[in-house]
Amino acid sequence: MVMTTVGSEEQAVVIADALVNKKVAACVNIIPSIRSIYRFKGKVWDDEEYLLIIKSTENNYSEIEKTITELHNYEIPEILSFPMEKGSRNFLNWIEESVL
Amino acid sequence: MVMTTVGSEEQAVVIADALVNKKVAACVNIIPSIRSIYRFKGKVWDDEEYLLIIKSTENNYSEIEKTITELHNYEIPEILSFPMEKGSRNFLNWIEESVL
Amino acid sequence: MVMTTVGSEEQAVVIADALVNKKVAACVNIIPSIRSIYRFKGKVWDDEEYLLIIKSTENNYSEIEKTITELHNYEIPEILSFPMEKGSRNFLNWIEESVL
Repeated sequence: MVMTTVGSEEQAVVIADALVNKKVAACVNIIPSIRSIYRFKGKVWDDEEYLLIIKSTENNYSEIEKTITELHNYEIPEILSFPMEKGSRNFLNWIEESVL
Repeated sequence: MVMTTVGSEEQAVVIADALVNKKVAACVNIIPSIRSIYRFKGKVWDDEEYLLIIKSTENNYSEIEKTITELHNYEIPEILSFPMEKGSRNFLNWIEESVL
Repeated sequence: MVMTTVGSEEQAVVIADALVNKKVAACVNIIPSIRSIYRFKGKVWDDEEYLLIIKSTENNYSEIEKTITELHNYEIPEILSFPMEKGSRNFLNWIEESVL
């Protein structure tokens, strides 16, 4: 599972569409209107963002990172991956069948 | 921690109630109105969903999967688990005491 | 990545501000208006909460736990950490530079 955040719903959909249409991700959940408090260039910021939760296979990670980096309009986009432990056999199969 | 997504708040509450009342999960967070872009049967879909974040002990995973599979109205429900690394002693104890 | 939940946006911002200003976390995402169904003191509750997703380095975990425990108004606050697997080099560097 990979996470990134973006600054608008448009950016969220552009990235999610690209990942799913290129068969790099099986599914992207977009969580709207989160509030992000973070430190950047020595200042603390408080902005509205959208959180993307990207589900794919582990060997698609580098292609996911490449796609996000190309499309993202931040200087340093968040791209973090978290290990999955278990999953239902049908859902894991569906992920495999939905990506390259 | 286990994640699933459903298509309505009713489904979210039915599943969350069942997991907590059966003492299979200590807590379920329901994140409303997420936007999910995913591939299914050769087409890309763009639907509103609800994301459930289920907190329990690891040995409850198969009972969680069984309960979700029984109650869920999707053909292939998402059921993924993620390993927890650390937690506050009091909270971990509370999870243990809240489940079978 | 550390997760906690709170009962109001004020509490969310108090904790997020403290973590980022003390350089204990680089970024905190606040997901508003989630619905939490959980067991506490023998009863099942159904409350509105805010979910905090805290991004920092692993060696900051105990300071994060200490800060949340000091500021949180729950008897037993949720404090759980999840292992990160990979991340973009630039973003991981940014996290390192943003915390002590």
